[in-house]
Order: sequence, then structure tokens, then C-alpha cells
Amino acid sequence: MTPEMIRDAARRLEGHARVTPLLNSPLLDRLAGRRVFVKAECLQHTGSFKYRGARAALTALPADVRARGVLAYSSGNHAQGVARAAAELGVAAVILMPSDAPAIKIANTRALGAEVVTYDRETEEREAIGAALAAERGLTLVKPYDQAEVIAGQASAGLEIASQARELGLDACEVLVCCGGGGLTSGIALALEAEGTAHVVRPVEPEGFDDVGRSLRAGSIQRNNQATGSIADAILTPAPGELTFPIMARLCGPGLAVSDDEALRAMSAAFRYLKIVLEPGGAVALAAALYRGDALAEGDVIAVASGGNVDPAQFARAIALDP
Amino acid sequence: MTPEMIRDAARRLEGHARVTPLLNSPLLDRLAGRRVFVKAECLQHTGSFKYRGARAALTALPADVRARGVLAYSSGNHAQGVARAAAELGVAAVILMPSDAPAIKIANTRALGAEVVTYDRETEEREAIGAALAAERGLTLVKPYDQAEVIAGQASAGLEIASQARELGLDACEVLVCCGGGGLTSGIALALEAEGTAHVVRPVEPEGFDDVGRSLRAGSIQRNNQATGSIADAILTPAPGELTFPIMARLCGPGLAVSDDEALRAMSAAFRYLKIVLEPGGAVALAAALYRGDALAEGDVIAVASGGNVDPAQFARAIALDP
Repeated sequence: MTPEMIRDAARRLEGHARVTPLLNSPLLDRLAGRRVFVKAECLQHTGSFKYRGARAALTALPADVRARGVLAYSSGNHAQGVARAAAELGVAAVILMPSDAPAIKIANTRALGAEVVTYDRETEEREAIGAALAAERGLTLVKPYDQAEVIAGQASAGLEIASQARELGLDACEVLVCCGGGGLTSGIALALEAEGTAHVVRPVEPEGFDDVGRSLRAGSIQRNNQATGSIADAILTPAPGELTFPIMARLCGPGLAVSDDEALRAMSAAFRYLKIVLEPGGAVALAAALYRGDALAEGDVIAVASGGNVDPAQFARAIALDP
Repeated sequence: MTPEMIRDAARRLEGHARVTPLLNSPLLDRLAGRRVFVKAECLQHTGSFKYRGARAALTALPADVRARGVLAYSSGNHAQGVARAAAELGVAAVILMPSDAPAIKIANTRALGAEVVTYDRETEEREAIGAALAAERGLTLVKPYDQAEVIAGQASAGLEIASQARELGLDACEVLVCCGGGGLTSGIALALEAEGTAHVVRPVEPEGFDDVGRSLRAGSIQRNNQATGSIADAILTPAPGELTFPIMARLCGPGLAVSDDEALRAMSAAFRYLKIVLEPGGAVALAAALYRGDALAEGDVIAVASGGNVDPAQFARAIALDP
């Protein structure tokens, strides 16, 4: 992973990925007790940052390989990112999704033109199913995080953060990132390093699924004990990636973990004060900014709001809460 | 109202008002049966375009006049815009709000540092109360729409639309604008004229409150028969303004009206496909784009989503609907 790979990916995304805004509100600042800037990746195409990595990976493939189609496994956001990028590039996409993924993610993935195959998250191993499907149909697997071109694509969000923070005069913030397998977290960390900033990235996870936080403390990859049990479905991955972990170990500060209730209250705060829609997994970084201030360095903080693909009933429950 | 006034206001807003994104989604396009681009003014500071006009008006005042403080009457969005602009500029703001305004708008206006005075929308005339308060305390009234500098401030949204549409290769769209008293509608129309575009602005109102649409058809100012009775509280004004009407009569296409149900379904579509929060009055233009296609010219359409200050319970009801 070189700075040149990151800048190449950003160039391939130019005019395709949205430059998402960095939002703030005095009412949000009051709640946090500090200035909080929110990188609204929920406004990215397909409702999450995943479109960046998907399009970066697909455009990095040789044309003849890409033409045979691609395959992805995903709880939903990576699925939609790959589906849209594939549709834009005119190639087939087969998406392997857990059967308990939010209905809106499955529906949107199909509506974006992909073929969806479902599996049982408790009893089946998605990596094995994915590999078999890829071999059978000649599809190229686009991994959700542990693939260099995917990480390089997610890094484009970090290049934007570096530039937007400079414009606002922010020069040494903690940058809180919602973290599953670590693709976005490691990508942003690499981009902020490449830009020579003094920002420090910190991964944020759901309590009980803090594999990255524990891995960073242990200095080696640690796995989660369970696959389900948090509402933050988008970021419930079994363990940090083989590629993403060493990057995070080198560049990131300590991990943070928040409760499901805190994630829901952060969704309510984003609804009230920023007018954006966040899903639980996309709200954990903001939750840490709002409710875990004691664990943060003093000063302004940047929270990456990574996605907004949430079912209406769950969103309704969240916004009924006081933030 | 000259192009120079509009450009002056835009210069005064630079670095203060947000350049809001123009969003789209293939799933939204499928629903509308055409390409729809949404100018997300709900992401403006204070959750609506009103901050533009408020800051433009306050910065146009002589310093000694501004220092005595300002007064505004508003169902909520103009209130918050004036409150924030006043707080930024270090001057007092007194806001006259209807007692039945959404709780979130009253609470946010107070939290932004303004003094809120409430009145009964059915029995009291806000203009009379406002004039009395202004005289008594030496405050300068910042009107919600019928004031040249306010219109010039709202026009900055139109300058952004002109530029964003050019980047996307859109050159002769219908631009649908949520319309109350006509400040945003006339401002955008003036800006698009000043930029020499071929776009045509069309005001969109709630059914039963289509005073602007009827005024355009009649060629003279027509009033609404009632003051309440639609959920689109942000845009329930009694009649088009003395300043805004002639501008709209000269520049706008025919008005459109949508039902409350269509506004709610448009809020659901914006939630699902764009991940933004709209209030009913901020969703009527998108509703016209989605559900009144028969009344629109062929081709791409731009819908201005003017605000997102909505109570959680009402938003929950909206997003439970199929768009």
C-alpha cells in the first residue's frame, strides 16, 4: 500500500464518488462538550462509503477479467457498493448476503441490478461459499475490506477529510471511524499519513464486538466470540483483516467501543441536528464523540458517519430517544 | 433586485453558508420515471435554506443598527436562521413563533440563543405583534421573505444550482421549489436568470394552500382561505409577498400542488434513497417530481429540498409509508 496507490484510486473515483460534506452544528457541539465534525458518508452513492472501495477495485481489474463479472459477500453496504459500481461499468454482480440482513439492503442491492444469494450467518461461512461461487462462474471476488484496491478506494474519504479539515483550520484531531474489518479505518489512516497530517485515527466498534480494539491492545489479531448480538450489523466482522490489521497497528490510536443504546442515541442526534440518516453501524463513531468524551484527547474531533442504510422501524425507534 | 445584489449577498455568505450537495439516486430516478436531482438545503446550517437569507439580511444592516438587535416572526425555520446568524454576529435576536410550531423548532431556536415569544396562529396577526415589538425595543425586523436582502440571500442557493447543474451537463430543467411566501422561489429564479440559464423555476405548494399557484394564474396576489390544515407548516403563508410575487410572475412557470400524503411519501423516499431528513414543507417539491410527473415538462428535473426540521414522531409516520 503506497501513497501512489491511494492517489491513483482517488483519481479513478473522481467524478464518480461524491465528495461528501463535513457537517457540524452548535447543538451537537453542546451535546459533546467539544466541536464535532461529521464526515457524512451516508450521503455517498448507495448510502455508505463502500461504493468508493467497490468502484476502485472494479476499475483496477483488467478489462477482460472485469467483463466476466464480480462477486461480493456483504451484510449489505458493500453489496450495494459493488452492485452499483458493476452496473455503472456494465458487468454482472453476484452478491452473497446473510439472510438476516436488513430488508432495505437486500431490496436495494437487487434494485441496483445485482443477483442476490442469501446464506445463514450462524451456520455458514461466507468466505467458503464465496470462493466456491467465484470458481464455478469465473467471477472475481471483491472482498469487503481485506484487499489492497478496496482499502485504496476507502482511503479517498481520508484524502477528503485531510483537505476539508485544512480548510476549517483543524490540524491535529482524533478521527473516529466506525470499524468492522478495518477497510475504511486503515484507508483513512493511510490517507492522513500520505497527506502528512497530525490527525490520529481511532477505530470505534460495538461493545462485545471490539475485535479491532482488542487486537490493537494485544498486538496480534483477535477474533470476536460471537457473530450476532449487536444492532450494528454493518460492522459485525469476525476479526480484523490480514492486510488491514498491520496498517491499523502502525497508524491508529487505541480503539473505542460503544453500546447499542449509545449508537441509537447518536442516530437521534444526527437526525435532529444534522438532518442525516445513519444506521447503527454508521453511528458508532459519532456515539463515541458524543458519549465517550472521557476517553478522547482534548479538542475538536472528527467522526466518520459511515452509512445510513437502516430499516424505517429501527430508525423510528432510534429518533424517539433523547440524544 | 439586481444581479449585483445577489452576487454581493453570495459573497457575504461565502465561508458561512454551506454549499449544499445536489443528490441523486438510481432508485429515486426509477420511482420518478426520470432523473431527479435534489438540492439538499436540509443540510444547510439550522436545517433549512433560511440561514442564507437571515445572514444576508443581518450583514447588510449598518453596524449600529444591527447592534441594537433583530426581530423575526416565523413558524420555525426562519427563526432558527435568524437566531444562528445573530449569534454568529454577536447581536440579540427576538423571535415571534406560533404556539403550535413543531417543538423541535422552538427548542432549537432557544438553544441557538434567541429569545422566543409565542402567539396564537388562529387569532393573532404576527405582522402586527412583530411591528409593535420592534418599535418598543429598537429591534430591526428581518422579514421571512418579503425583503430584498432576504431574497438576495436565498438566491445564493440558485447560484449553486446553476453551477452544480452545469457540472452535471443539465441545461434546461424544471427547477421545483417548495414555496411559502416566495422568498426562496423568487431568489432562485433571479439567480438562474442572472446566470443566463435556461432552467425554469416552478413553485410547489400544499393542496389547499396554493396561493402562489393561484396568484400566478390570476396575474394578481390571491390569499389562502385558511391558516392551518396542512402538515407542511413551514410553507403555510397567507399570500405571496409584494416583492416576491412580481418576480415569480415574471420568471416562474405554473405552480404545482401536492397532497399531505404525497409530501410524506416523498420524505420516505428521501430517507430511503438519499439518507436525508426532510420536513413536510421541505418535501413538497420532491413530491411533485415523484408523483406529479404528468404536470412536468419531459426530461431531468431539479427539486429543492428546503428544510428538515421535523419532529421524530411525524418523521416516523412518514418513513413507514411506501414511497
